[in-house]
Amino acid sequence: MPATAQSSPRSAQRDLSEAPLLVAARGGRPSRLPVWFMRQAGRSLPEYRALREGVPMLKSCFDPEMLAEITLQPVRRHGVDAAILYSDIVVPLYAAGVDIDIIAGTGPVVAEPVRSAGDVAALPVLDPAQVSAVAEGVGLLVQRLGGTPLIGFAGAPFTLASYLIEGGPSRNYEHTKALMHSEPELWHRLAGRLADMALTFLRAQLDAGADAVQLFDSWAGALSVRDYREFVLPHSAKVLGGLADYDVPRIHFGVGTGELLAVMREAGADVVGVDWRIPLDEAVRRLTAAGGTPPVVQGNLDPALLGASWPVIETEVRRVAAEGRAAAGHIFNLGHGVLPGTDPEVLTRVVELVHSLEP
Amino acid sequence: MPATAQSSPRSAQRDLSEAPLLVAARGGRPSRLPVWFMRQAGRSLPEYRALREGVPMLKSCFDPEMLAEITLQPVRRHGVDAAILYSDIVVPLYAAGVDIDIIAGTGPVVAEPVRSAGDVAALPVLDPAQVSAVAEGVGLLVQRLGGTPLIGFAGAPFTLASYLIEGGPSRNYEHTKALMHSEPELWHRLAGRLADMALTFLRAQLDAGADAVQLFDSWAGALSVRDYREFVLPHSAKVLGGLADYDVPRIHFGVGTGELLAVMREAGADVVGVDWRIPLDEAVRRLTAAGGTPPVVQGNLDPALLGASWPVIETEVRRVAAEGRAAAGHIFNLGHGVLPGTDPEVLTRVVELVHSLEP
Repeated sequence: MPATAQSSPRSAQRDLSEAPLLVAARGGRPSRLPVWFMRQAGRSLPEYRALREGVPMLKSCFDPEMLAEITLQPVRRHGVDAAILYSDIVVPLYAAGVDIDIIAGTGPVVAEPVRSAGDVAALPVLDPAQVSAVAEGVGLLVQRLGGTPLIGFAGAPFTLASYLIEGGPSRNYEHTKALMHSEPELWHRLAGRLADMALTFLRAQLDAGADAVQLFDSWAGALSVRDYREFVLPHSAKVLGGLADYDVPRIHFGVGTGELLAVMREAGADVVGVDWRIPLDEAVRRLTAAGGTPPVVQGNLDPALLGASWPVIETEVRRVAAEGRAAAGHIFNLGHGVLPGTDPEVLTRVVELVHSLEP
Repeated sequence: MPATAQSSPRSAQRDLSEAPLLVAARGGRPSRLPVWFMRQAGRSLPEYRALREGVPMLKSCFDPEMLAEITLQPVRRHGVDAAILYSDIVVPLYAAGVDIDIIAGTGPVVAEPVRSAGDVAALPVLDPAQVSAVAEGVGLLVQRLGGTPLIGFAGAPFTLASYLIEGGPSRNYEHTKALMHSEPELWHRLAGRLADMALTFLRAQLDAGADAVQLFDSWAGALSVRDYREFVLPHSAKVLGGLADYDVPRIHFGVGTGELLAVMREAGADVVGVDWRIPLDEAVRRLTAAGGTPPVVQGNLDPALLGASWPVIETEVRRVAAEGRAAAGHIFNLGHGVLPGTDPEVLTRVVELVHSLEP
């Protein structure tokens, strides 16, 4: 595999062994409760909107200076404990040459949906050189981030496949589910190729110095655990397992995955992200019942509640932090991405509150 | 309450005590495994699209002949064990005079979102006379349906509130959740009024002869069980409890409610609808763990799988039926509504297969 041949595991990472995020991710005792927000880099920030003006989404993801600056903005503003690489779930597809675009107000749109054996065979392989601009941005970030860890970013095979098969965002994933059940061999071939792509993309980020990764299987919650186990687990495991040699924390997250948490951990996650639908102590119970070492969790304040009054938010933040104590480690986060209308000052205040709590 | 004053409980229902759906709903032994499909009346049928041509959605819901015919179409075509009243979740709001419309491709759109105490106070009360056209349609249906039961239809307070507060369909329910947490008293006032409205609407259908009801809390799965219990349960319980005197089966359903099943039953459901994310035997386990008599469940074939090949569908239908045997009663259905692109002949074939199985 070209990606692994070029990799030099562990050589690129800075020594951030005391960084609260990395300590918590390894189940240690951090100096403070670490907090960051999914989608912290992006639409909720006026400085982001100013920078992006007139620049198409996918262009901004391949401009090293711009992606580094956008990634840094929320770190500067909120004082969060991690930067998350500014990117998009379809970046590796686009980089490899898939005809895909991100339409404002719609999301990723694929020119030719991938549904036949021929379509899958025609899918290009991602060469690390095609994401060198992203790697360059990561290089700038690790120079500029000081002691703050950088989390690398990729979409998981199922979520990537759903965009390719449906042709864009979907509510019901009907073509995806029909294909995986009716043509399982074709499905596994497609998902396997997307796993390779995600792996190449993440290894490129790690080789450039990223300190952790998060694999987003945003829409996996649309599947039953039976379907997840049969059709998704092997491919997400290939991605997460393929990063083991870097010895960096691997975070795995999807929305509405209360039923899937244990299997998502089984895929090779060191940290399991939890949405707001179940309390973290219940998530810990489910992860523990499945066996293995005590779990580290990430989450899970309902992002919709950031529009509520401050006393409500404060109560919820304290509750989430208290429930997180059931875990071997807790990284405070939202239960899904920051909503575009969120007041950035509220995010800053949440960070201050989280940092004031006993870790 | 005007609605109850006009009601004559039990007087309007036909004697369908042997109908498989009603037998199963009461936990008895039906002559065959009953099956119907959420959204069976509507977009998937060419005869529906022909009838609706040029007729706006909300107009069709208030035309007794048309709504009766649309409700009958899938019964005739598929031989299902129940008719579900053709209607829309916003029909009682529209009938009461709320400025709301259904935009094709978007869904219900509210002219003035309801977010303040003044907005809530200005919300009209539904008079049963305002849904007399629906009651008339129900009257036609019970004459024409022969031995097939008619299931009445209403949206639950949370789902109705979400449309009113957000101003239309939503992905994140941010205004709804912010309002319920920041202004709980106002929330409860709003949800209470919507409960009254749903109750009036369902009583009108039952007075006209409907044989069962289904309360759709379509989007309740966006809530944690904590929020559901505090903000939603009392109001859904008001609706379902307010129908107790009719002694008809009350079905309660929402999407992605694996965490909420027991509380939704607690609201007063005789039958709990389950989506495809958890197997029916697991749903039964959760409902039984919460105490009470053995549960009756409805569901839960993934509607997206109706686009798969027939052998896949057959396997899934048999699995769902087998898992349903864990319940005190099982009404076969999808895990959500029929998708618009579904081939109606597949639905007919599913009905035949379900009827060939041991009940």
